[in-house]
Amino acid sequence: MRNSKRSSRRQLLQMGAALGGGLVAAREKLRADDGAPGQLGIPLGPYGERSPYEKAVRWRRDTKTPETGSSFTPLADSVGTITPSSLHYERHHAGIPTIDPAKHRLVIHGMVDRPLSLTVPEIKRLPSVSRTLVLECGGNSGSEWAAKNGPDVQRSYGLASCSEWTGVPLSLLLTEAGAQHGAAWVIAEGADACRMERSIPIAKAMDNILLAYGQNGEALRPAQGYPLRLIIPGWEGNANVKWLHSLKLTDQAYMARDETAKYTDLMPDGTARIFTYQMEAKSVVTFPSGGQTLPGAGLYELTGLAWSGRGRIERVDITTDGGRTWVKAQLQEPRLPIAFTRFRLPWRFDGREAVIASRAVDETGYVQPTREALIAARGMNSAYHFNGIKLWKVQADGTVTNVEA
Amino acid sequence: MRNSKRSSRRQLLQMGAALGGGLVAAREKLRADDGAPGQLGIPLGPYGERSPYEKAVRWRRDTKTPETGSSFTPLADSVGTITPSSLHYERHHAGIPTIDPAKHRLVIHGMVDRPLSLTVPEIKRLPSVSRTLVLECGGNSGSEWAAKNGPDVQRSYGLASCSEWTGVPLSLLLTEAGAQHGAAWVIAEGADACRMERSIPIAKAMDNILLAYGQNGEALRPAQGYPLRLIIPGWEGNANVKWLHSLKLTDQAYMARDETAKYTDLMPDGTARIFTYQMEAKSVVTFPSGGQTLPGAGLYELTGLAWSGRGRIERVDITTDGGRTWVKAQLQEPRLPIAFTRFRLPWRFDGREAVIASRAVDETGYVQPTREALIAARGMNSAYHFNGIKLWKVQADGTVTNVEA
Repeated sequence: MRNSKRSSRRQLLQMGAALGGGLVAAREKLRADDGAPGQLGIPLGPYGERSPYEKAVRWRRDTKTPETGSSFTPLADSVGTITPSSLHYERHHAGIPTIDPAKHRLVIHGMVDRPLSLTVPEIKRLPSVSRTLVLECGGNSGSEWAAKNGPDVQRSYGLASCSEWTGVPLSLLLTEAGAQHGAAWVIAEGADACRMERSIPIAKAMDNILLAYGQNGEALRPAQGYPLRLIIPGWEGNANVKWLHSLKLTDQAYMARDETAKYTDLMPDGTARIFTYQMEAKSVVTFPSGGQTLPGAGLYELTGLAWSGRGRIERVDITTDGGRTWVKAQLQEPRLPIAFTRFRLPWRFDGREAVIASRAVDETGYVQPTREALIAARGMNSAYHFNGIKLWKVQADGTVTNVEA
Repeated sequence: MRNSKRSSRRQLLQMGAALGGGLVAAREKLRADDGAPGQLGIPLGPYGERSPYEKAVRWRRDTKTPETGSSFTPLADSVGTITPSSLHYERHHAGIPTIDPAKHRLVIHGMVDRPLSLTVPEIKRLPSVSRTLVLECGGNSGSEWAAKNGPDVQRSYGLASCSEWTGVPLSLLLTEAGAQHGAAWVIAEGADACRMERSIPIAKAMDNILLAYGQNGEALRPAQGYPLRLIIPGWEGNANVKWLHSLKLTDQAYMARDETAKYTDLMPDGTARIFTYQMEAKSVVTFPSGGQTLPGAGLYELTGLAWSGRGRIERVDITTDGGRTWVKAQLQEPRLPIAFTRFRLPWRFDGREAVIASRAVDETGYVQPTREALIAARGMNSAYHFNGIKLWKVQADGTVTNVEA
């Protein structure tokens, strides 16, 4: 905080000026008890709730069955880098099962020397680690391919959230089970009604996958896989199988529904990229963003989120003139690998139309591409893995829209 | 995670052996669908809830009025380093006010050149920062002074929690208001019914205090000061005034109730230490801890939390023989300054009585003292600022109690 103090101070002085006389209070506005109740408040409680004045919720697209579909994190209302568990995005294929952890088992079987059937308490007794990691649906911002984008950042980019996950390194359990010669894949299956399955290469399973039971300091939420799920750093959300009850070691991938009919990338030549688990560097401006209205000209703090499935965010550049010029944003420390990184930049809105966007660079040197560059490489047949630069247009009257809208 | 893989692997193999044949499943236990519902789950929701099987709640001490008192974070049920906002400890003096943020104002007045009256939206527009910080009541574990300690870690150490806070550096607003010559203190006042006040030296106010409106990615919870509170890195919770509506610059401290009648440390010679805001390095083992029962001899992961008001935790040592020998625990990275640091250590319970404790060392070199050393320095008249080493006794039958109980 100290390093940024000098420049921040200059910013505030400008911002005060930008707010006109608003910051300097008239005598009658100095009464500090506006809105303050003059009576005893409510009692202490066992498990707290948010303020009744806070209304941000996940948005969901209408589907024929309410148990299937997606719900989106309200990114424009988020602050900092952690997503509250209550607002973590959802993507379910058969609803959220209500699992009794006392009855749940994780079975590890197939091409192993020692099949295992583990209870949740047995798993919680094992060596554990905690990691703050972003989770992003492979289909997040997929509507951007065709520029049929949502009107706001929640509906277009809200299938990404960030939590502190706690669990057991999967490698420990696989070592205990003993993979047999020729075992090359781990088939993870969930205990939801559709028994969702994904195939995971054993090299990744032995690298850094977590068998998670904790999220943001407490048990996983049911909507995020209670009591057990896979957390695969940097890989698309769908592979992070929820309500995990079976891991089967095999010599081949299963070619399951969600790695053939879904979650593949159809290329212009008619072939499909499959097993495209890896999420690349990405960023989006959350303020100002679509659907918001700036109250007038003046100085604002532009902000947003950047992340990469490959490691730390190294730099975020901001344009406010549609990509002609770029300046470096401030990045909130600590920048954790494969986690949301909050970026911020003071920005003066002068009452003229502005086209703003962010561009993330990760520690591998990968630069978030423009939408045009992405389409040149992959065509427009895919609904997955869109990570192009996202433009918002601030109109002269302060309203903010999608550039393509 | 890679560095710890080799040693963790050895641990698991031991742990598997310790669990006897339990890890290796019999044929009939391999059915993975125990407890898994064979029907569609519940629909996606706007603002999620935890599992009905999760029961951890804040515990509260009975008081004559339910609006006053403390409620304690269930540390033994916590995982990782973040405290869920719903389980953050509470300490209220007149209940939790329900404040409409549209009507709330923060007034900065007194010895300033430009008095300010700010709305919440005006404050949210200013340059912001996020910091993960522990908050601890000055009275946390105060019962340990007299060894009248609670039966478990929640009731004895649960007035400490850790959140990611987001807000505006207070220095920016004080600079904008312009402290007059001779202004030495900032009197912070809350909008609760008792108008709780604390006096803060202006040097600290200009250093690193946050005017916070965000907690763990969303708005502050009402129980933690919605819509605005002070967050003072490393200082006792009481000074982090909640429901903040007034900051008055003065040339003297106010000697308010909570810095004279309360939150002072009475020394053996009858004098009192006052304005003892600073929290020192501290740690506690959360597993195994009082009230728990180990199911039998074998290998366990001992774990707990360490923190310091002065910076990063540098090392945590563990004893399992009442302090005769100590070994270094593994520390979860990233170790953030003035935040919870999770420590872990594999530990074999051999079925004989064991006395376990943790000892934190922070980046200043400060070593958490024994209870005896603390009492030798400060006597036993105080109810505040106890940070002595905490011992738990694991009985031969696996039950865990306070050593002094």
